[in-house]
Formats: sequence, C-alpha cells, structure tokens
Amino acid sequence: MDETPELHSDVEETARRIAEMEVRGAASIADAAAAALGTQAATAESETPEAFRRTMRAAARRLYETRPTAVSLPNALRYVLSGMDGDDVETLQTTVQQRVSAFRDDLDDAQDRLGQIGAGRFSDGDVVMTHCHSSDALSCIEAAVESGADIEAVVKETRPRKQGHITASELRELGVPVTLIVDSAAHSFLDDVDHVLVGADSIAADGSVINKIGTAGLAVSARDRGVPVVVAAQSIKLHPKTLTGTAVAIERRDIREVLDEETHEDIGAAEVANPAFDVTPPRHVDAIVTEHGQFPPESIVTLMRELFGDSVSEPWTD
Amino acid sequence: MDETPELHSDVEETARRIAEMEVRGAASIADAAAAALGTQAATAESETPEAFRRTMRAAARRLYETRPTAVSLPNALRYVLSGMDGDDVETLQTTVQQRVSAFRDDLDDAQDRLGQIGAGRFSDGDVVMTHCHSSDALSCIEAAVESGADIEAVVKETRPRKQGHITASELRELGVPVTLIVDSAAHSFLDDVDHVLVGADSIAADGSVINKIGTAGLAVSARDRGVPVVVAAQSIKLHPKTLTGTAVAIERRDIREVLDEETHEDIGAAEVANPAFDVTPPRHVDAIVTEHGQFPPESIVTLMRELFGDSVSEPWTD
Amino acid sequence: MDETPELHSDVEETARRIAEMEVRGAASIADAAAAALGTQAATAESETPEAFRRTMRAAARRLYETRPTAVSLPNALRYVLSGMDGDDVETLQTTVQQRVSAFRDDLDDAQDRLGQIGAGRFSDGDVVMTHCHSSDALSCIEAAVESGADIEAVVKETRPRKQGHITASELRELGVPVTLIVDSAAHSFLDDVDHVLVGADSIAADGSVINKIGTAGLAVSARDRGVPVVVAAQSIKLHPKTLTGTAVAIERRDIREVLDEETHEDIGAAEVANPAFDVTPPRHVDAIVTEHGQFPPESIVTLMRELFGDSVSEPWTD
Amino acid sequence: MDETPELHSDVEETARRIAEMEVRGAASIADAAAAALGTQAATAESETPEAFRRTMRAAARRLYETRPTAVSLPNALRYVLSGMDGDDVETLQTTVQQRVSAFRDDLDDAQDRLGQIGAGRFSDGDVVMTHCHSSDALSCIEAAVESGADIEAVVKETRPRKQGHITASELRELGVPVTLIVDSAAHSFLDDVDHVLVGADSIAADGSVINKIGTAGLAVSARDRGVPVVVAAQSIKLHPKTLTGTAVAIERRDIREVLDEETHEDIGAAEVANPAFDVTPPRHVDAIVTEHGQFPPESIVTLMRELFGDSVSEPWTD
Amino acid sequence: MDETPELHSDVEETARRIAEMEVRGAASIADAAAAALGTQAATAESETPEAFRRTMRAAARRLYETRPTAVSLPNALRYVLSGMDGDDVETLQTTVQQRVSAFRDDLDDAQDRLGQIGAGRFSDGDVVMTHCHSSDALSCIEAAVESGADIEAVVKETRPRKQGHITASELRELGVPVTLIVDSAAHSFLDDVDHVLVGADSIAADGSVINKIGTAGLAVSARDRGVPVVVAAQSIKLHPKTLTGTAVAIERRDIREVLDEETHEDIGAAEVANPAFDVTPPRHVDAIVTEHGQFPPESIVTLMRELFGDSVSEPWTD
Amino acid sequence: MDETPELHSDVEETARRIAEMEVRGAASIADAAAAALGTQAATAESETPEAFRRTMRAAARRLYETRPTAVSLPNALRYVLSGMDGDDVETLQTTVQQRVSAFRDDLDDAQDRLGQIGAGRFSDGDVVMTHCHSSDALSCIEAAVESGADIEAVVKETRPRKQGHITASELRELGVPVTLIVDSAAHSFLDDVDHVLVGADSIAADGSVINKIGTAGLAVSARDRGVPVVVAAQSIKLHPKTLTGTAVAIERRDIREVLDEETHEDIGAAEVANPAFDVTPPRHVDAIVTEHGQFPPESIVTLMRELFGDSVSEPWTD
Repeated sequence: MDETPELHSDVEETARRIAEMEVRGAASIADAAAAALGTQAATAESETPEAFRRTMRAAARRLYETRPTAVSLPNALRYVLSGMDGDDVETLQTTVQQRVSAFRDDLDDAQDRLGQIGAGRFSDGDVVMTHCHSSDALSCIEAAVESGADIEAVVKETRPRKQGHITASELRELGVPVTLIVDSAAHSFLDDVDHVLVGADSIAADGSVINKIGTAGLAVSARDRGVPVVVAAQSIKLHPKTLTGTAVAIERRDIREVLDEETHEDIGAAEVANPAFDVTPPRHVDAIVTEHGQFPPESIVTLMRELFGDSVSEPWTD
Repeated sequence: MDETPELHSDVEETARRIAEMEVRGAASIADAAAAALGTQAATAESETPEAFRRTMRAAARRLYETRPTAVSLPNALRYVLSGMDGDDVETLQTTVQQRVSAFRDDLDDAQDRLGQIGAGRFSDGDVVMTHCHSSDALSCIEAAVESGADIEAVVKETRPRKQGHITASELRELGVPVTLIVDSAAHSFLDDVDHVLVGADSIAADGSVINKIGTAGLAVSARDRGVPVVVAAQSIKLHPKTLTGTAVAIERRDIREVLDEETHEDIGAAEVANPAFDVTPPRHVDAIVTEHGQFPPESIVTLMRELFGDSVSEPWTD
Repeated sequence: MDETPELHSDVEETARRIAEMEVRGAASIADAAAAALGTQAATAESETPEAFRRTMRAAARRLYETRPTAVSLPNALRYVLSGMDGDDVETLQTTVQQRVSAFRDDLDDAQDRLGQIGAGRFSDGDVVMTHCHSSDALSCIEAAVESGADIEAVVKETRPRKQGHITASELRELGVPVTLIVDSAAHSFLDDVDHVLVGADSIAADGSVINKIGTAGLAVSARDRGVPVVVAAQSIKLHPKTLTGTAVAIERRDIREVLDEETHEDIGAAEVANPAFDVTPPRHVDAIVTEHGQFPPESIVTLMRELFGDSVSEPWTD
Repeated sequence: MDETPELHSDVEETARRIAEMEVRGAASIADAAAAALGTQAATAESETPEAFRRTMRAAARRLYETRPTAVSLPNALRYVLSGMDGDDVETLQTTVQQRVSAFRDDLDDAQDRLGQIGAGRFSDGDVVMTHCHSSDALSCIEAAVESGADIEAVVKETRPRKQGHITASELRELGVPVTLIVDSAAHSFLDDVDHVLVGADSIAADGSVINKIGTAGLAVSARDRGVPVVVAAQSIKLHPKTLTGTAVAIERRDIREVLDEETHEDIGAAEVANPAFDVTPPRHVDAIVTEHGQFPPESIVTLMRELFGDSVSEPWTD
Repeated sequence: MDETPELHSDVEETARRIAEMEVRGAASIADAAAAALGTQAATAESETPEAFRRTMRAAARRLYETRPTAVSLPNALRYVLSGMDGDDVETLQTTVQQRVSAFRDDLDDAQDRLGQIGAGRFSDGDVVMTHCHSSDALSCIEAAVESGADIEAVVKETRPRKQGHITASELRELGVPVTLIVDSAAHSFLDDVDHVLVGADSIAADGSVINKIGTAGLAVSARDRGVPVVVAAQSIKLHPKTLTGTAVAIERRDIREVLDEETHEDIGAAEVANPAFDVTPPRHVDAIVTEHGQFPPESIVTLMRELFGDSVSEPWTD
Repeated sequence: MDETPELHSDVEETARRIAEMEVRGAASIADAAAAALGTQAATAESETPEAFRRTMRAAARRLYETRPTAVSLPNALRYVLSGMDGDDVETLQTTVQQRVSAFRDDLDDAQDRLGQIGAGRFSDGDVVMTHCHSSDALSCIEAAVESGADIEAVVKETRPRKQGHITASELRELGVPVTLIVDSAAHSFLDDVDHVLVGADSIAADGSVINKIGTAGLAVSARDRGVPVVVAAQSIKLHPKTLTGTAVAIERRDIREVLDEETHEDIGAAEVANPAFDVTPPRHVDAIVTEHGQFPPESIVTLMRELFGDSVSEPWTD
C-alpha cells in the first residue's frame, strides 16, 4: 500500500482529541470514534468500493493508533467496520452510517438496559457485596432499588485507592444501607451476603474477567461460601483482541499508592508491587450482565464475535 | 463451698499485675501465672491432700479471673493443675512444682524450637507469603535463613493496621528480600509463592485457626492455587475451652482503624465493621507448627488434651 | 398506540382455550399458539407492512397474556415473530407462515429427535438414575433400548408427589429393570450409576436448569461421585426472558402434599414449605440434550437466541 | 482353653434380658452390661489374677454374644476390660469396679454434657437444619435454647419413616420455630441455614459417620453451600471394631416402608431398595460433638482408642 | 431414491486413494475431499438444482464412506455442503466452488494462525508441560519462540508409544530447553509449570476433549495445582457428529505396545488393556485454541455449528 | 561428653552388617537393630542408671549412624529407647528387654495383622487399583481372597521400573484376575474401580504419604472420580523425624531408567528427571492401614508419637 488515503478533518480532530485525552472515558471515546467514522463515510468521495473500504480502514487505523491499548475504542471501530457491506459505494456508505447510528444509540442507553437486566437477579431483602467502584454494577443496584426492592450492600474499601468509598457514598445516595469493610474481611462477611457484584475492566475471549486487583480472590471465596458472582459490563468492555490469544497486560501502578515515602524508608529496602488488575477465570463467575442480556462467562465469546466480528485479524489492517 | 482458702501474697500480687496489665503478652502472662502457682504450692501449709488441692484451685481461679478471655493464662493454669498428682501433700507439692518448672522451661525456648521445626518445611530458594505479623511465624523464616537457605517473602500489608509493615521491616533486618503488596493482590501473587505462613491468635479443638482477619480468605485462595498453608503457633495458643464447644468470640475493633472521621462524614451514614479475626477451617490448613512438632490441624486436639487436660470442665472449678 | 388491531377469531378462540386450560401441556400450547399466528398472518388484510407487523404483534400479545408465566407459549410467539421478515405485506405473510410451519414440524418430532440424541450418550449395560418424571428424559432411555442397549434404572421416588412411581411404571413397560429408592438414598446409589438423567421445567440464559425440587442437590452429589449429569429438554423449555435477568420464580405448592392435616396437628405449629422446583447451576450439569443437538449448559444461551431472538425486549411489545 | 469359668447369675440374667430385648436402647444396654461386669468382679472368687481375668473375659464374651452387631454393648465391655489392671486379684477387682462406676456415671449425664458442648457452636438467631431424629442432636438445641438463644430449625421429613415429624414435634415443645420440608428441598434451604446438625448410628475409626440414609448427600450439599456439618454422638456410638478395618454393614430394611403393596403392583415388577444408613466421609463433617468435647472427625479415633482400648483384637478373646 | 448419480472420475479416484491410504493425515484427507467436491461441482451437468444437489450429496457420500470414523473428512464435506446455496445450478456451482476454495485456503495456513494465537498465552520465561506429540501444540511454542520468548518445556514421555520423544526432539530443534519425565512424574512437576499444552484427536459438542490416553488425568492434576490447561486444535478436529449425542468410540490398540510377549508369559494370565484416548470434560480445560481464535471449551459448539452446519442429520443423506 | 561408652560386640557387628548392606529390607534392619539393643541392655555393666542410659544412647547412635536416612532403623531405636524406664539399672535393663521383645514380636506378624485389617475394607466383587509394588498392600488383597472374597485388580505398570509387573504376577498367583494398564490409563479406569490401594515409602507427621512417583496424581484422580484411596503401611514406615518439620528428601534416580543412551542421543540435549517418590497430602487419602488399626491420615501422628516418642529431639542424642 504505497499511499494513505486522505481523511476527513473530523477524523483527524477526533484522533487528536482522544490522543490528548480531551475525550476520556470508555463510552465517550467509543462514541466519538464511531461518530468520526460516520462522518468519514458520509463524506467519502471514493470512486470504487475498494477505495471506499481502504479509506474507511485508514480512518479506523488513524483513530486506533491514538490509544492502541484501550478496549472500547477498537470495539467501536470493529463494530462499525464489521457491518460495512455492499457492492457499490453508496450501499457501503449507507451500511456504515446505519452501523454508526446503531452503535451510538446502543451506547446511549446501554447502562440503563444493563441495569434493568442485572436488577432481575436480585430479590427484595438481598445483600450484595461490591468490590472497587463500577457504574455498570451500581446501575444494577439502582434499578433494583427503583423497582422497589430493599437491597443492602457490603462494600469492600478496595485498597490501595479505596474506590469503595465512592461506591459507599453513591449507594448511600440511593438510600441503600451500607457496611464498609476492609478487603480482608470479605471472606467472613460472605456468609451474610446473597450476591457478589463487580464490574470489569475488560473481558477476554476465554471468558476471563479482568478487573480491579482483588476480584479473583473474592470470586474464589464466594465459590467456597456458596455465593454467586455477577459481573456487570457493557459490551464495549469485551476484548476481541484476546480472541487472538493476546494476553491482557496487567498495569503496574505507582507504588506510592501503597506506601508513602517516609514509611517506605522506615521499613527499609522492600520492593513494593502494585498491579492494578487481576484475572478471574470463568469457572468462578456465575453470569456476565451486559446490555444485550446476561450470559455465562463461557459464552460471552459468542456475543463478542457477533458484535465485533469473528476475524482474528484486525479489520483496519490493509 | 463456704470458704475460700487464703492465698499466698505472690498469687495476689501476680493477679494484680496481670489485671492491671503490668504483665503483658501471651508468654509473659503464662509464665507469671505458672510461677505464682509454684510459689503457692511450695509454701502451702495444707493439712490434707484435699485442702491442698482446694487451695491450688483457688489460686488458679484467682489468677484466671483477672483475664477470663485470654488463652495463654488459663493454659498455664490447666497445664500445672492437670499434672498435680499424689496421695499426700508432699507429693502433690512436688508434682505441682515439677509441672511449673516444665512449663516455664518449655515456654522459655518454645519459639526457638518452633522456629527450627517450621524451618524444616522450607527449601533453599522458596518464596513465602505472610499475613499480619507473628513472631512465631517469623521465627520459622529466621531459622531457615540461619541454616543457610535463601528465602524470599511476599508480605501482605494487612489492613486496617498494616502490621505487614512490621513484618517487612523485621524480614529486611534478616536480609530477606521482601515484596510488599496490598491484601487484594495476594491471590495473584500466589502463583509465584511456595508457602503461605501465618501465626494464630488461638486454635480451637475442631482444628479451626483463629487469626487476623484475612487469613481465612487467604487460605481458600492458597488451596485454589495449590500452595500449602502453614500455621506457626506455640502450644499456649491452643484453646482448650473450645473443646467444650465454646465458639471463639471475634473482637470488633474501633472503626476509626478503618475510616477516619472526616472521610466517614464525606461518605455519609455508612456502617463500618472492623472484626479483628476470622476462622479458618482445618481443611484449608496443611500443618500447624508448634514447639512440640508439626501436626495436621485435625490432630491438634490431641496435643491440646495432652498438655492441658482432657476434662471438659475447668480444673479450677470447685 | 391509540387502537388495537382487530384479531382473527381463531386467535381469540385459541387464546380462550389456553386461558381456560382446554389446551394443556407445554407442547400443545406452543403448537396452538403458533397455528393461530399462522391463521392471523394468512388472513391479514393489512395495507402496509407496518400495519401487518402491528397486527401480528397484537395477536401475539393477546395469546401471551393468557398465560404470562408459561415458557413454551412465549417461545412459540418469539420463534414466529423473530422470523417475520420482508418489505411488503405478501413477503411478511409468507415468512410468518413458513416460520409457523417450521415451528410446528419441529415440535412434532422434537421429542423423538431428542431421544435419539440423548441415547447416544448411553452404552450397553449402563445404569441411569432418574429424578421425577420427564417424557423428554424417558425418550432418551426408550431410544437407547430400541437400539438394542441393555439399560437399567435407579428411580428416585421424588417426594412429595412421588412422580418416580410413574417413571418406574413407564420404564417397566419398556422392559427396563428398575430399582426404586427414596430420595435420600440417591447419594449412596450413585457409586453404581453411570449417568444421572433429568428433564427440565425451564432453562435460563445463564445456563441454570430449573427442575423439580431435588435436582440441584442430586447434581452436587453426582459431581462428588464422578457421575455425569444430563438434562433432556426440548428447546421450548428454554426461557428467553431470563436473558433479561429475570429470575425464575419458584412456585410454592400446597403444603398438604407434604403433610396431611391430622399429622400436622399432631406435630404442632410447624411451618411447612413446599417449593416445586430448584435451580441447578451450569457447573453441575454436563450436557443439555435438545432436539437441536446436545450442548454444554453454558452454551445453551446461543441456541436460545438463535431460536427465539436476541432481543432483550419482548417482540410483541408495541 | 478347655473350660469356661462359671459366671455370676446376674451376668446370665443380664445376657438373657439383652438377648430377649427386655433391655433396649444403646444406653440402657451399655449400662446393664457394665453393671453385670461390676457384679461379676465384686463377687469373683478367682484364686489367681489370671483366673480372674479369664472369668472377666468369659463374662464379657457371654454378654457380647447376645448382640454381636450392636455398638454400645461391646463398648461397655471394652471400656471396663481395658481398665482392668493389677497384679493381684483384689487390685483387679477394684480397678474393674472403678471402671464400671466411671462408665455408668459418664453414661448418666453424657447427653446433658454433650448438649452443653454442642450448644456452644450456636449463636443467637441461628438456623439449624436437622435430618432424621436424634436425641443427642436435640440435646444441643435444647441446651442452646435454655441458655437463652433464639434458634430456628429446618426439619427434613426423612423418608421413608419420616422421623422428622418426631423431631419437629419435640422442637415445637421447646418453642423452636420449625419449617418442615421434604428431603429433596434441603439443598435449596441450605442458603438460609447456619448449621447442619445430625446424630450418628455409629462412627468408624477412619472418621466416617454412619447415620440415617440421606446424611451423606446432605453433607455434600452443605459443603457446596458453605454450611458447616456437626455430628452429635455420645462416645458409646464410636465403633472400635472398625479400627480393625471391619466395614460397617448397612442394614436393608423392609421395602414396605418405601412402597405399599398395592402401589407396588400398579408399578409392576420394580425392585425396591431400602438401605437404613449411609456413610459420610470425614472430609464432609466439620465436628463431632461428644460428651468428652468436640473433635474433628479425623481425630475421633484417638478418643476411641483412649476409651475402648487400642487393641485391634477383642479384649474378651481368650 | 432409485438411482445414484454418476460421479466425476476425480471423486472416484480420490475416494480410492483415501480408502487405500495413499492420502493420509487429517489435513491431507480433508484437502483432497474438498478438492474432489470442487471438481464435481465445476463439471456437473445437472439440469435442475435438485439434481445438482443430489449429485453433490452422492459425491460427498461416496467420499464419506471410505473412512466413516475419521473426523476431518466429514468436516470437509459438511463445510462445503453447508455453503451450497442458490436457486439455480449456476449459483449452486459457484457457491460450492467458493466454499471449496475458502476451506482449502483456511486449511493451508490454519496451523500457522493457530500457533500465533496460542503463542499469545505464553509469557517470556514460562514453562510448558506437554503430553504426547501434537503439531498444533508445537506450533504455539514455535510461534512464541519466534516472537522472542524464552520458553522451557517439561515433556511427558507418554507411554506406551513414547511420542514424548518426538516432542522432545522437535523442541530441542527449536532451541527449547527440555526436561523429559515419565508420565507419573507430571503431578510433581506441575508446581514448576505455568501451562499444560496438549493437542486433540477430536473435540465433542459438549466441550469434551478426546486426546491421547493420560490427558484427562493430567488435566485433573493441573486443576489441583492451579495450572491452566490449553488445548491446541485446528477446527477440522471438531466432531459435529457428537452434536447428535454420538459418543466418541475409544480405540483399543495392540496390547504388545504395552507388554512384549515374553514378559507377558512371565507375568502369567493377565489381561492387558490399551485404550488409545481418553475424554477430558470441559470443566478441566481453560481454553481451546483454533485458527479461528481461542474459545472456552463450553463454547466450541458454536464454532462447530458455524463451520459445519447446525443440522443434527448428515448433509449427504438423501 | 568426653568419652563414648564401649559397646557390646553384637552392636558393633550389627552396625557393620547394616552399613555393608548384609542386612537389607526395612523390617530386617529394624529387627536386627532392636535385637542388638537388647543384647547391649542384657549385658550392660553400668554402675549407675545414668551410665546405663548413656551406654544405651551410644549403642543406638552407633546403629543409627550406619544409615541415617532410613526410616525403619531409627524407629526401632526410638521404640526401644522411649520405653526405657526405671530408677535403677536392673529395672532399666528389664524395661529395655521387654521393649525389644515387644517390638520384635510386633514386627513378626505386623504384615499379617495389617492384611487382615485392610481386607476389612473390601467387599466381595470389588475391583482394586494398585500402583507400584507393595507387600503391605498385597497382604490386604491376599487376606481378602483368603476370606473368600472375589477381588479383581487393575494394575498400573508403574514406569520407569515397571514394578507393576511384579504386582501382576503375585496377584495372578493368588488367583486374582488382573488387567494391566499403562500409568496414563489409570484415570479412565477409575470409573470401574472401587478402591485405590497403595503402599508407602514413609509417612510424615503432617499426614503426607511419601510413595512411588505417580501416587500423588493417582490420588487426585481418585478423588475426582469418587474412589477412596487406602494406604497400607506398617508402623515402621512412620517417619518421626518429620515431626520436627524435616521435609523428606526425594531421591533422584539414574536417568537411564527413563531413557537408554542411544535414544537419548537421538533426541538431543534433553534433560531427564527421574524422581523416585512424590508426596500425597492427607486430604487425598481416605485411610492408612497399619498393624495397629486403620487411621485417617490426619491422625497418624498420634500413633507415631505413641510408638516412637513425642520428643522432637532424637532420643540417642547425648
């Protein structure tokens, strides 16, 4: 491929805004990228279907390269490109634009729908244990509360950043009685808990759930205590690249989250390790709740391929 | 029983010092109590064996009542009284004094012997994960290091009080490379760990280990990851009262250890629960290392009855 | 929507007959409902595609509301409506009628096909344990026997209604040697059993099997004893509403099934609980046998969406 | 051995009364047998220690042979004979009589002590699930209630003989709220239960619990649901013959308990199997509560050998 | 069907060469069969679509019957026939030929793509345990090594035919450090292993993996030791006939592989059993790596139906 | 200690014969060592009890040092010394000699008694799987056969040395039908097996069983398939040194047992590892059968301390 097609200025601008983090958050990034592809398709002046396709792939590639390790961004691109279909430029334009609309519409009310679905798993009087903070997970509790169920929560503080405090605060605003505990107390409290509910950073093709450090151990404890584990995650969290075997790299964060400098000096020359996430295998998860319904984790690969294509290569590769 | 025998002033003084926490620490309390019983026996002026026995029970009762929820204190009393034997006062005096000596001698080098025994489980190059801070557990690593083994440690910080910092600091002094992690990271790190090593607050007759909150979940994770769990505990941690079915009450500590007042106000009306300990069932523990050897947790009741008597009633009861 | 379209009298009549239980049994209800939709489609006089669709939705809604908690009824409606496709009324009519035919044809020989498939799991000389009474499950044994295999059965009586007696009687008619046992004896007999075979009341999107009370415990026992668990269920037992997170409500039946009034009075003021079903999680089930083949329970959601649509909303909703 | 020593008429009379079932019940038989040995010892006119021992063995043998498959009877004999000690007839007589007294005294208040110990495992507000009827198990609930705890019970009816009705009735008399369920519903109810509590028919040297059919499956379910299993059993239920590897034979009871003749004829030529007991391995039991304290099942062999001798041969064998 | 259509001489010739094992190996057979169907389609002179379809079914049947127990052969036929689509002969011809090309192209680079995907699961420094010899499995290690990762291998010798020697030799050629062990040593070495990697003889619809005897036990050991199990298998190993419940028959091979005649005579009249394969249930497998991506074993049925049709009957049946 | 007492020439001669392997086999070595201590005691001319004790310790030490890694040798010494009791030389002599006699008598019929006990676990018609060759294990089958039970055996060949051939041959001599399999086939055959029966090289204080490589994996498979695991081991296999935490070192044997030189060269520079034993944790073993009865593995430490002393130091240490 000797020449890269020229892209619409909206694509370039969106790429810049994502790269410079003017657009942030999984959903916002995905929305902006889809919109940019839509604009590119609407304004394309390609003379042949192949030229159109090449331009669209170039636009997707441009956007993709701004944040190659994100999950929602390539999902938006995959979703749109995997629906690009037709034998003439006009049809191709139409199908891309329809696909962009569908994606953006879905995104718009995905969390609400997910919340409704997740709420279906709870009964009046249930106690739910949370880990970290996840707006997808909270939307399930919110929907249950709005439908009239009394729900109580046991909230793990989630060291090192204690996002459990945010969860506790938001649950209190919903009127949910909260018991805040240190992470180590979770196993003991599971005997009084009906569900473990967590979000996901991403979900792999083999059904593994990548989520905040501590999730994997919590899930093992829950199985030991007979408590089901529910993961709430919009479909933009599905990670199609893992279909190709790519392991999800686990970010190691700043050790100062774990230990301030002064205490560190007192302790001496200890290493500190601060991985942000861990990997929970599907056998320790009972259901993944998405806006497209709930699935056993072992079946989420089907939804992943349905939404984002079954190709093991990246659709923006020339 | 209409009359309580008069007790030696050393017994009264020891009782006072224990009650007022001038004597502190499981081993120190046990030692002082045994010594006081020895003095009482040596100076007894009982005319009949039964009078002597009654006096000794009264002395034990006096000491016991200063801290009825401690574990090492009643164990010292049980150990001494369960060895009181003979048909005349003189023999009774002798057996009590021998028993007192044996107890105090054992206590004196118990941790060293325990350390030697526990060290036997480690091989050169092993990585050990610790939870909280336990001098019994550390004595095993120390003995291994002194015998020339290279040992590395993964140290859980152990919220809320972060006693892992003390453990890390003491291990660094032994020259042991340390990786400090938050509690939630333990499950992930278990794949690189050869042993989990913890201490015990007390050990029940059914083989359960009562230890710092977080131990029970760690043991479940270790079983899931194929890592053996070792509990290091001197025999004064055995809890003979549990033979009688008494459940060990779990202390709930000050919630300010978990959450400072200001943050609490920010969060809103959340409850905070701060249990100090949890209960690990014997099926999740591979061995209990004591100064009398290592035992499967299911067999520790045998050592408990051997040392502290097989009576389900308390030996100082009249 | 200001106006409900007028429906064909067959639809009204079928609705009445289902509501008044003149039509009974999962398969019969499903068949009647599909037929009624076919008639409605064939005779529709809609002028626009949208009017036709509205009418069909109204017909489905009319039928659905007669028994909103049934499973096979909405499945018939979902199956037919999810195949309604076309840009003009005539095409819509044709696709609906094709879909009705396909559904009714499938239904007609579903149990036979299912039986052939399930029989493939049995070998000559195998011993099969049954719970409750299920014609789907029995069709598997019947097919195996007809293919010449010697099969023996251990039949749980299945308190409180002892449907095991019906199972035993039907198996005897097939010439299958039967050992009848009380439910509590199942665990002991599993050491001499090669398969556990049960039916299903319904199957949820998360792979859970809702079946006669006692199934969940039997499956746990079978896993402990190394015996595979097979669920035989026609696809009309799949419960697409659970895709939306809706938990299946467990019917509580008359306590007189458990305890006659006189004995109850003798016992005194005891509560009696008589739940009809329980929920077996997919991890305790080895395969679900349907007329479309056998599936791991974690994958049955794929068949559910394929047959009954992937929409999380109900297709008859206007 | 050419000659059997002549036995005291009390021994012969007791043997007759046990054989003809005038004396019934595990405790009564054990008590009568011990008393008879005491009389034999007190009135022995043996001239040599060996003659005395031979006579005592003969008396034990005489009693043993009246009910060779009972458990409490040989335990009484073993307990007494294993304490027979001394180098002259008088000492032998004394030690036997002391041993008889100790045994009978223990027996007298064993259930009360056991109840006190078992009650220690329950907390205020706990829900206990029972299987069959066991006065040892009920004594634990009774003691808990008497100490002021609010206890609720879920009572399995326990087919085929529905001894759960007796349990329900006795619990109602204690004021305990009862929910009666069919056996198959146990698994579902375990999520709302804090303890499973059962008695034992006998307990083997390998820690297995032989109890009413249904116990083994219940224990597996309880482990799956994270609920601890407690077995309440006086020490006369320990089965020292199993130390010698003897498997406990499982009684098969009258099939009419399962199926009346008329129904049986309706069903056709089905076999009916009605085993009375099953065997729960120690790994599914959390604790055995005896009047000597609570033990992990894996350690009960220690108590068995302590009370009834460590000989693998029978002490009454000449 | 009174008349079998005449088939192209290439079909007859290919059938003969497969039957006489001139064409061997799963991939070669599949390729030849697909090619023959392509020739048949290209040269068909059918006058009606139905005649064309009948001819193609006959050709497929002819090929199928040469090796009815193979897996790749019917998969090639199913793949091609399930893509035959159209209302006129010409379209049917085109779709068949496109399908043949797609199949053969996929086959050509399937192992390379699979290797790339499988390599994604390994990290630099990982130790992989292998069983038997599988070129699919080795392609994963090869791809990892080529991408620059240092991989070590623990190679089971795999009695009776010791294919582990071939594996060891090929790994050595890749420069991978190898430790060769007897099969019984695998459990011990799992503590130092990061992945178990095996191939598959075939994979069933219920997610079971049929592979060289010893795989099932190895997978159980790996789960016990916390080591993930990966199965590398091209999609031609999927076994769609199992969708219909057909159990995979396990070949029993010559007993002389296990025991030479002389030793057998020395031992005496012992039976020898030499099953070639065993069946690993999906719950003991973490992922199946195919050229279409990696899947949880519970979801492989989706890929199976996608590639080879969802019909439970065989597509070449008239 | 400035002077080593002179030892009886029998002690020196026995030490020499053990050191030079003229005396071989666990039982023969133990017997010879005990006999030598008996001679030393009988002929001792010590003037003080302490001198006698010192001499006996010296004799034991002399014998111990000939084979410090054996198990039965130190057990003989421990058994004798732990029974040495008395306040004067004569009594000490007597108690040692009694202890020697008891030990040798026990040893003489230990295997027969163990066989009787183990046979009690088998029922007529049972199938037993064996690993390696163990005369203790075979004595259980022999006793069962002699008592009239029909027993069949599945015999693992036990690479690398194929001791299964010896087992098969000896079982054939007992008339037991044998099926010989490769080690990897064990998991598949467990579905048709009622017991796994193995011997032990030694048994540790934590209940672990050290036995021929392959035992640990077999036990995991047996648990997965619901088959109980029995270990047959005379008490001289108990390893009291493990009470002190000492891990049992696993012998690595000649790699030529695994791979002949020529094949090794063909393969290339592969490492070969040939560990002789592995360690099975107590949770995977159902019972240990000794001549003193059967025990849960978690309780064997009690028998170990009873027979060989509860001291964590070696009794022959000055």
